[in-house]
Amino acid sequence: MTQINNIGLFTSGGDAPGMNAAIRAVVRTATYYNLQVTGIRRGYEGMINGEIFPMDGKSVANIIQRGGTILKTARSEQFRTPEGRKIAYEQLQKHGIDALVAIGGDGTFTGARAFGAEYDIPIVGLPGTIDNDLIGTDFTIGYDTAINTVIDAVDKIRDTAESHDRVFIVEVMGRDSGLIALRTGIASGAEAIVIPETETDLNALCNRLEHGRKDKSSKIVLVAEGDNAGGAFEIGRHIKERFPHYDTRVSILGHIQRGGRPSCMDRVLASRIGVAAVEALRNGHRNEMIGIIHNELSYTPFEHAIKHNVEINPNFLKIVEILSI
Amino acid sequence: MTQINNIGLFTSGGDAPGMNAAIRAVVRTATYYNLQVTGIRRGYEGMINGEIFPMDGKSVANIIQRGGTILKTARSEQFRTPEGRKIAYEQLQKHGIDALVAIGGDGTFTGARAFGAEYDIPIVGLPGTIDNDLIGTDFTIGYDTAINTVIDAVDKIRDTAESHDRVFIVEVMGRDSGLIALRTGIASGAEAIVIPETETDLNALCNRLEHGRKDKSSKIVLVAEGDNAGGAFEIGRHIKERFPHYDTRVSILGHIQRGGRPSCMDRVLASRIGVAAVEALRNGHRNEMIGIIHNELSYTPFEHAIKHNVEINPNFLKIVEILSI
Amino acid sequence: MTQINNIGLFTSGGDAPGMNAAIRAVVRTATYYNLQVTGIRRGYEGMINGEIFPMDGKSVANIIQRGGTILKTARSEQFRTPEGRKIAYEQLQKHGIDALVAIGGDGTFTGARAFGAEYDIPIVGLPGTIDNDLIGTDFTIGYDTAINTVIDAVDKIRDTAESHDRVFIVEVMGRDSGLIALRTGIASGAEAIVIPETETDLNALCNRLEHGRKDKSSKIVLVAEGDNAGGAFEIGRHIKERFPHYDTRVSILGHIQRGGRPSCMDRVLASRIGVAAVEALRNGHRNEMIGIIHNELSYTPFEHAIKHNVEINPNFLKIVEILSI
Amino acid sequence: MTQINNIGLFTSGGDAPGMNAAIRAVVRTATYYNLQVTGIRRGYEGMINGEIFPMDGKSVANIIQRGGTILKTARSEQFRTPEGRKIAYEQLQKHGIDALVAIGGDGTFTGARAFGAEYDIPIVGLPGTIDNDLIGTDFTIGYDTAINTVIDAVDKIRDTAESHDRVFIVEVMGRDSGLIALRTGIASGAEAIVIPETETDLNALCNRLEHGRKDKSSKIVLVAEGDNAGGAFEIGRHIKERFPHYDTRVSILGHIQRGGRPSCMDRVLASRIGVAAVEALRNGHRNEMIGIIHNELSYTPFEHAIKHNVEINPNFLKIVEILSI
Repeated sequence: MTQINNIGLFTSGGDAPGMNAAIRAVVRTATYYNLQVTGIRRGYEGMINGEIFPMDGKSVANIIQRGGTILKTARSEQFRTPEGRKIAYEQLQKHGIDALVAIGGDGTFTGARAFGAEYDIPIVGLPGTIDNDLIGTDFTIGYDTAINTVIDAVDKIRDTAESHDRVFIVEVMGRDSGLIALRTGIASGAEAIVIPETETDLNALCNRLEHGRKDKSSKIVLVAEGDNAGGAFEIGRHIKERFPHYDTRVSILGHIQRGGRPSCMDRVLASRIGVAAVEALRNGHRNEMIGIIHNELSYTPFEHAIKHNVEINPNFLKIVEILSI
Repeated sequence: MTQINNIGLFTSGGDAPGMNAAIRAVVRTATYYNLQVTGIRRGYEGMINGEIFPMDGKSVANIIQRGGTILKTARSEQFRTPEGRKIAYEQLQKHGIDALVAIGGDGTFTGARAFGAEYDIPIVGLPGTIDNDLIGTDFTIGYDTAINTVIDAVDKIRDTAESHDRVFIVEVMGRDSGLIALRTGIASGAEAIVIPETETDLNALCNRLEHGRKDKSSKIVLVAEGDNAGGAFEIGRHIKERFPHYDTRVSILGHIQRGGRPSCMDRVLASRIGVAAVEALRNGHRNEMIGIIHNELSYTPFEHAIKHNVEINPNFLKIVEILSI
Repeated sequence: MTQINNIGLFTSGGDAPGMNAAIRAVVRTATYYNLQVTGIRRGYEGMINGEIFPMDGKSVANIIQRGGTILKTARSEQFRTPEGRKIAYEQLQKHGIDALVAIGGDGTFTGARAFGAEYDIPIVGLPGTIDNDLIGTDFTIGYDTAINTVIDAVDKIRDTAESHDRVFIVEVMGRDSGLIALRTGIASGAEAIVIPETETDLNALCNRLEHGRKDKSSKIVLVAEGDNAGGAFEIGRHIKERFPHYDTRVSILGHIQRGGRPSCMDRVLASRIGVAAVEALRNGHRNEMIGIIHNELSYTPFEHAIKHNVEINPNFLKIVEILSI
Repeated sequence: MTQINNIGLFTSGGDAPGMNAAIRAVVRTATYYNLQVTGIRRGYEGMINGEIFPMDGKSVANIIQRGGTILKTARSEQFRTPEGRKIAYEQLQKHGIDALVAIGGDGTFTGARAFGAEYDIPIVGLPGTIDNDLIGTDFTIGYDTAINTVIDAVDKIRDTAESHDRVFIVEVMGRDSGLIALRTGIASGAEAIVIPETETDLNALCNRLEHGRKDKSSKIVLVAEGDNAGGAFEIGRHIKERFPHYDTRVSILGHIQRGGRPSCMDRVLASRIGVAAVEALRNGHRNEMIGIIHNELSYTPFEHAIKHNVEINPNFLKIVEILSI
């Protein structure tokens, strides 16, 4: 068992609901094992700037249900440079921090990997991003909440689409990944889903809208923002051109997808891997992201976690095709 | 008491949560008084096209909690012409309809007024619009739900704004009226509110953002879509220009504001005035919108209801100024 | 204008959603007018015990959307005695507090009235209670949120009632008042409402259930806890006895009605009268509760506010009768 | 490939959110494969009584987001007898039904197993129950929604518990299983969880409440209804006796846990296995429940699915212990 005394804890990258639950779990687990925890505000940027302060069980009271992150988050240009990382390491030493828990996504772990290669400090990561685009965990913290936020919004849009017999093009987050669009498309009964992982054929999409059930007056197309067809507005334009008699509207759901009270599953996931993060550091793990695969804890080296080739289950696309009849 | 036998019922214009509760109330009250009710789909357009069908208590079972309108709604160019209205009247006669309840907003009552002037058929209106921009009622059906939807969304945006120290420009509905922006701005703790009723000075707005409490890292500006400053994107551009170091984002809430389960107050309002509509027709009212002012039923001639000069309570703007300290 | 320098602020009695919005409004308005604000925890009990601390704009950051009260609340036996009130007054003097804002209900204002009669300190009250049972305001802070929580719960119960063809007796809060039951009964489409303000005839209630529309398989009866018929369990027992073939269930909604994010209207109400409370003290008001009647600020002496004879609008009962056809 | 022409579809046992999404998926998939679907109302009881009617794609429009089951559900004493099952089979023959999809839980599959043993009709089952207590699937349809409903309620209760420094004993569903209590206990930050799978020591529970962090004024104990300690009221009594100075309250969440709009994950699960059910029948499966294990379709013979020995992950109990520090 490695001798760890003081764990530095931070969130980085885009915030995600459930990050606070993870923070709470890390702090309380450290307390349980008689370790100190030191909070670092604004991710790597705050590490460099010395926004560093002691935490205890009370610091995380009554936050499990809150969206966002009490540690705040930021992107850091400085940390991309060796000079920046050097200052960061000096700050950690100054505050007696001898291990790190990083909560974030792709960029967070890219930074952690570089840092861990240069300095002898154990780092473990927790996957916190609504995009679910990391290798090494079935789900990332925040994904389940985000997809519930999306279907809540699309249910509302369906009300007005039905009332007006409209076609709605709804854009959801996912710059590199259609994972949000895919599950929410199935769950909201979308007529079609447009994602970056598959080539989008706008004419085929229009044919699909045209030849659906005749008594269906409203139609919803769910689009991931990173799709190659040009985003919701471009798709909307194409549909309007081909079907001028349709009452076609575009809705960009935007930042509401990042906030809100975390779902039960996100809180449970965050709690489980938050506990595991501290235990992993005690057991000598380093440079790994901790996730849950098939309901078991899983440890993935940072370099694998960020490879970004999460695959789309082709059955899901088939399901959309079958169910939108 | 006027002899009414068969009430035609329709929704028109933009849909609003609570319209179904109003439909239910009209149908059940008519049944209670042994009157027939005939549903008309898609507003004036369906009236002209003969989308007309009998309704009874069962037709409106289990709809009180549903957003949208089961009678659907549409805009009708034809009904703006005397020829269109003539066909509509013939359809009503053909189906034995001898009175009308119209649920909608400004455009709906403009049509009703013209129709009532040309043909001898009693019409009463119920205010159904999320905009709350009608004279003759404290609140319109749908407004309370819409403002709750907005603050739910802004609460989520605040989570991410706080986590990232961002400035968010959030655009809400209200082409001619700042009533949605005003109450939701107070309720979401916005730093500033931009509405069409007052001249917008973008420099003053920027000063306000600059000189607020220094420890406040996130700021929210709530903008009504009809504002003269050019909408949320234009305002966002201006802020970015003046404060390039701010992380400024724009979010257009869009159509989610129209849908969703109606709030308790919207259901109660819709139920009360739905009952009153049938009783008003029985008592000889015509060409009037029925609303509630100071908790009492109120009857306003259509020509007054649509005058669109709902005033902004200046105290509300003062409250925003005080509370965003 | 009375010279006020330091306002003591506390919440007392049952908590209600929106109390935090009121606290925020009082603190920020005081700051706006360059007054000090001193928080008192746990109501009168904390006043006696000296749980007193300075507040500023930052103390109330990011609380407008949170249920409960950050100042906590408690009941105080000691404050009912002259000795207790003497200690309380000495504490206020010790902390330099020269005016009070009390947020709460009936018991809170009863205490405030006694205190204001014995000591020369101006006190104004804000109505914070989910029960809406105070004279001097159309709505109390928390009522609108509570009724939305109730209909959300009853909508869920309706899902399962419909699926199983069940009769549900749902008990809501309201020891002395049927105001919660009345509006939520209309809004949830209840077949019957049982409230303390009217004599309950269980046989008539059963007849009503028996002779309703035949195709209606599920039925909901909404009961205020203070009803003389003995509460939901007793009513359930009676219905089971008379209709053993009904699948009758009882559900007590309980404390969920007190919590949750406040609705838009509750936040606006709390903000408006929170601002007004500070302005009222500056303008020499004392011993009055501040409310809003017909959209205007209203000032009611404590002795009138607590008279508890809020009347039930008889039309509401008629509406239930008509709409449950 | 077995020749199936007409699939009978029903829901049975306790209703669960997501059943409608499953119904929709079965109907649309059958339509996709050019099969007929026949709906059976009220489970086995309706099968015996001939409540049988044709369905098509339109029958299931706009139901994916609705709680409950449009096919209704009931318990059937008759079907437990060979005579009842004989009538049921004759009804199926009369309506030309040559395969069945049963959506429900333990009792549903017990019935299906008996029926399938006596008559030559292929039956597949879909796990629909909020309890998550079936072998053969990671999650049952309805569980995810139910646990979100619970934490939404407990979050509200926490607001009032915090404001009043109270101890709350909250009872959730789970007659034979602590699975709802376990995840919701972690997710709501409960101080302790009481479940039927482990022996409950009330004194140890009290010690735990007594020796927690001293600055924690509110405490929540989550109890599964089937616990051997006697339920929430009994536990509440015990705590009150030992700690008379605590302000201890009991809340039974009850039937709200069964209703409500299904979560995204429940809709996706229901859609996936709804599609799979029809494909399974086409591929010759029978007497099996279809679930998802480790994100793959899984087929479990009815006799195994109902064995009811779903195990509790002991790590979850450890997590509660660590995090409630």
